[in-house]
Amino acid sequence: MSYQEIIEELFTSVKQEKNIGSLATFIPELGNVDPGKFGIHLTQVDGLSYGIGDHEERFSIQSIIKVPSLALAYKLMGESLWTRLGYEPSGNPFNSLVQLENDHGIPKNPLINSGALVISDVLISKLNNPHEDFLEFVRKAAGNPSISYSPRIAESEKSASYRNTALCNFIKSFGNIRNNPEEVLDFYFNQCSIELSCRELSEAFFFLANYGLAPPDNDRMMTVSQVKRINAIMQTCGFYDESGEFAFKVGLPGKSGVGGGIVAIHPGQYSIAVWSPILNKKGNSYRGVKFLEQFTTRTELSIF
Amino acid sequence: MSYQEIIEELFTSVKQEKNIGSLATFIPELGNVDPGKFGIHLTQVDGLSYGIGDHEERFSIQSIIKVPSLALAYKLMGESLWTRLGYEPSGNPFNSLVQLENDHGIPKNPLINSGALVISDVLISKLNNPHEDFLEFVRKAAGNPSISYSPRIAESEKSASYRNTALCNFIKSFGNIRNNPEEVLDFYFNQCSIELSCRELSEAFFFLANYGLAPPDNDRMMTVSQVKRINAIMQTCGFYDESGEFAFKVGLPGKSGVGGGIVAIHPGQYSIAVWSPILNKKGNSYRGVKFLEQFTTRTELSIF
Amino acid sequence: MSYQEIIEELFTSVKQEKNIGSLATFIPELGNVDPGKFGIHLTQVDGLSYGIGDHEERFSIQSIIKVPSLALAYKLMGESLWTRLGYEPSGNPFNSLVQLENDHGIPKNPLINSGALVISDVLISKLNNPHEDFLEFVRKAAGNPSISYSPRIAESEKSASYRNTALCNFIKSFGNIRNNPEEVLDFYFNQCSIELSCRELSEAFFFLANYGLAPPDNDRMMTVSQVKRINAIMQTCGFYDESGEFAFKVGLPGKSGVGGGIVAIHPGQYSIAVWSPILNKKGNSYRGVKFLEQFTTRTELSIF
Amino acid sequence: MSYQEIIEELFTSVKQEKNIGSLATFIPELGNVDPGKFGIHLTQVDGLSYGIGDHEERFSIQSIIKVPSLALAYKLMGESLWTRLGYEPSGNPFNSLVQLENDHGIPKNPLINSGALVISDVLISKLNNPHEDFLEFVRKAAGNPSISYSPRIAESEKSASYRNTALCNFIKSFGNIRNNPEEVLDFYFNQCSIELSCRELSEAFFFLANYGLAPPDNDRMMTVSQVKRINAIMQTCGFYDESGEFAFKVGLPGKSGVGGGIVAIHPGQYSIAVWSPILNKKGNSYRGVKFLEQFTTRTELSIF
Repeated sequence: MSYQEIIEELFTSVKQEKNIGSLATFIPELGNVDPGKFGIHLTQVDGLSYGIGDHEERFSIQSIIKVPSLALAYKLMGESLWTRLGYEPSGNPFNSLVQLENDHGIPKNPLINSGALVISDVLISKLNNPHEDFLEFVRKAAGNPSISYSPRIAESEKSASYRNTALCNFIKSFGNIRNNPEEVLDFYFNQCSIELSCRELSEAFFFLANYGLAPPDNDRMMTVSQVKRINAIMQTCGFYDESGEFAFKVGLPGKSGVGGGIVAIHPGQYSIAVWSPILNKKGNSYRGVKFLEQFTTRTELSIF
Repeated sequence: MSYQEIIEELFTSVKQEKNIGSLATFIPELGNVDPGKFGIHLTQVDGLSYGIGDHEERFSIQSIIKVPSLALAYKLMGESLWTRLGYEPSGNPFNSLVQLENDHGIPKNPLINSGALVISDVLISKLNNPHEDFLEFVRKAAGNPSISYSPRIAESEKSASYRNTALCNFIKSFGNIRNNPEEVLDFYFNQCSIELSCRELSEAFFFLANYGLAPPDNDRMMTVSQVKRINAIMQTCGFYDESGEFAFKVGLPGKSGVGGGIVAIHPGQYSIAVWSPILNKKGNSYRGVKFLEQFTTRTELSIF
Repeated sequence: MSYQEIIEELFTSVKQEKNIGSLATFIPELGNVDPGKFGIHLTQVDGLSYGIGDHEERFSIQSIIKVPSLALAYKLMGESLWTRLGYEPSGNPFNSLVQLENDHGIPKNPLINSGALVISDVLISKLNNPHEDFLEFVRKAAGNPSISYSPRIAESEKSASYRNTALCNFIKSFGNIRNNPEEVLDFYFNQCSIELSCRELSEAFFFLANYGLAPPDNDRMMTVSQVKRINAIMQTCGFYDESGEFAFKVGLPGKSGVGGGIVAIHPGQYSIAVWSPILNKKGNSYRGVKFLEQFTTRTELSIF
Repeated sequence: MSYQEIIEELFTSVKQEKNIGSLATFIPELGNVDPGKFGIHLTQVDGLSYGIGDHEERFSIQSIIKVPSLALAYKLMGESLWTRLGYEPSGNPFNSLVQLENDHGIPKNPLINSGALVISDVLISKLNNPHEDFLEFVRKAAGNPSISYSPRIAESEKSASYRNTALCNFIKSFGNIRNNPEEVLDFYFNQCSIELSCRELSEAFFFLANYGLAPPDNDRMMTVSQVKRINAIMQTCGFYDESGEFAFKVGLPGKSGVGGGIVAIHPGQYSIAVWSPILNKKGNSYRGVKFLEQFTTRTELSIF
């Protein structure tokens, strides 16, 4: 059976089952999304590509952007990046402050909110025009110049930002934010506001499946070693305090967002993006996790 | 360059570098080991096998036994095992009690001490002769009837057991140990006392690289899906609060012990065991981590 | 209105109200007590004394014994005692292990279980015959040679001792228990097993209201300064994570036990003991707290 | 020996000893104070009053203002205030966020920063002109219309406010701040900026020693019961994670500020204010604690 046939079959069966959970209403704009949306797109290293359902419709990728942000900061800073934050799983929810107090302002990893704020701070220090330069990096990774921030969603994030404001000021109080907290938060909200379709998302992450080379011309985004390490971080830290569960059930490095998107990587094989906005209790797409679990079981292709 | 040549070269170069850290003196018997010992053994799925240095000398595998213990409990209990403990990385040292208090006696995963005590309790409940039956399982996995407990080391563990006694009684106070705490501790110490050589260790873990089939006759130890899940748990939880680091630097699922042993799995390719007793600050073999990091870099074979 | 009249009136009114909570069934023997028991005894510095209800019936004083244990250890060790434990309120339940991990085995204060275990360890090291010598000290404080341990209750404590066994071994793992954990636990359980009536209890604590002088012959138990400090510790730490509440509502230093007893001290005025076995959610006598709150309101005599 | 003679003698001896610690440089303005300043003022219920040293010089009372703020909020809200925060000692430093995460945004007590922010929020909701009305309340308590905010110090607080900004937004994220966090922070900084001399401070707190009646005309500030409860809270919570120590060594309810001021109350007897800007490791005036410890030892007047 081909990947395409397996995806079609699983898409149909998962769509027929009950969709259990709720929308991410704490960001007002995300509460307005049609909860029935469901799309999948696979981009293979051998050049094939396949999508189904709402795979061409853009949605808010939210925290999934933490991976490209990390990639750019890592490319710019090299291993010295790890003096500012770690790469260990956190064992705590994505926005916990407890760990920061114990570790004196050093976030556990770059894929929780505190870590992404430090990454944003690094990018502001390193880039001439942070907002523009970062967008350029994402466009290049995706081979897609139409990618852009959504002022509407960025504004909506900001209105619900008390916890992130707390995190950013808390890290600043330890000296691990170098720029103005408001500037860091604005940049962070802008990053989170990007909207991509499943097709665009799987293309933007394709270089992580393709040893660092991006479409359409195989431009090198970063070294092979850096790509492996980003995949390792996605594997151990990509799903907050459910990272073990995703490794256990799906067996691929990946990253989720509260907009209902999930992207997963099979190094050397493919990148795959799924979107369904209803979230399980841990804040990950209910259908997204379900589909990917069945997909790696059926294809017998997990990295383990 | 063949695996054998790479191993030989790295063995020599790592051996020439300074060995930084100390022996695990908190278990008296482990403090008597020659700190210069260094052995490596690789067992490939295609039938090849190669060892170097002290790879035929037995050493105390300690916590590495937590993986076979988990495997047997998982085989006996199926998914119902996960009502008794989780499979999320802990973010805490191996013998922390803090997490248990927050989670009311449910250990985060089976590869920290609290989780291994619950696994021991499960095995006592499920096996007719826990000590004998478990040994039989390990012998079968390794295809090696000479494997045995070391009463000398088990006794030495016991003399240094205050923290484990605390953990076991603490879990019991939440009702998540069903048998007598002393009986559970005795069984746990016996498991930790097993001594294997690098060759034997890589053979005992071979079924995890070989989709569940054990040497010499390809007997099925457990299902393909269970094997994948055990590898996923090793990847996210195998090195206590340094699991992210091992994924980041080595990129393979693995497990370490305070005796200085490390075993790592490349699913579908090989199992590899390294032994060098000097431990880094986090309690993992200094040379073992260093060798494996360079080995996966040189072979360009990590799972990521 | 005299103290006696106020006590009589409040005893009657509190007795008529509903008694809300439950018995301390986690120690089997305490579950067999008549839940309707209610007694009060007041011993004044000026020599007057008054009791009502079941004030002559002995009950298990449990954790209340932590105060005499502290007093004897303090008397023997002086200020050097405070290298082994602190005198700060804990902010955690009485048997929490979290604080101990953060503070490397140094209990926050002597009136939580971990602190009392360290006190027991100190007494074993300092006394020739710990069990006999401690009993002698309590008998002398109370002017009452008939006080004794209850083997039946000590045995019952032991059968429910997993949490205390965990605490004691955990502290031992940090080196802050010097003797054998089993020996320390046995002595601790024996202390907790003592049974006193309200009259005997208020007499045994009388020296803390009387600047260190005990009945009947005004023998000095310890210095004025030491007495003040023990009262201060009772004030800030006597009711686990409800110590603030007791200070707020009653305004006197005191100590409670899960047997339903409470003793409170008005320095320079009186000691008072109340017993009613039904406990509130925090493990303190429901009627005991209620009576004392109304008593200090009516007499307008709190220390604040 | 009279109080005056004891104060004179202790003032001289403490002043001759080495002053150990450092200024509170994290608030820039506080780093400019003459570290040698030392003043004491005692106001007795019987009408006598006595001061020595720099007792007429105004200094920044900082957190000491948390007590009048609590008093006004308690007066306005009654017991319903305690749905918004607790009155238990915290066991953590004054600006810890850990406790808030465990307790879902409910501060442990009103005398740590998180609690004072909730109190400020309550006052904003309850008062027509929060800044003016609060000042009026403090002026009335002190019988002193010249008391005022210091814009210079308020501005300096604000420049060092990352941790407090984190706290306020964190509590807001749990819904336990009702007004705009910036407005709450501005009001909080204004309160902390008040400057008083030792004389003025002891007079402003006099009503807590005098059962609720304030100078010069014995106006009732609040009920006797409310006064007792505020004193109880000062006793158990007034010195952050050193509250047990102050009870142990001094034995009076009190409150300290990082400006080096301490005020203590002997209910029914006196209020006393001490100022010396060098702080010990826990952030309390080194000489202030030392003087008060010796003062209560010499006068034999602690509440215990």
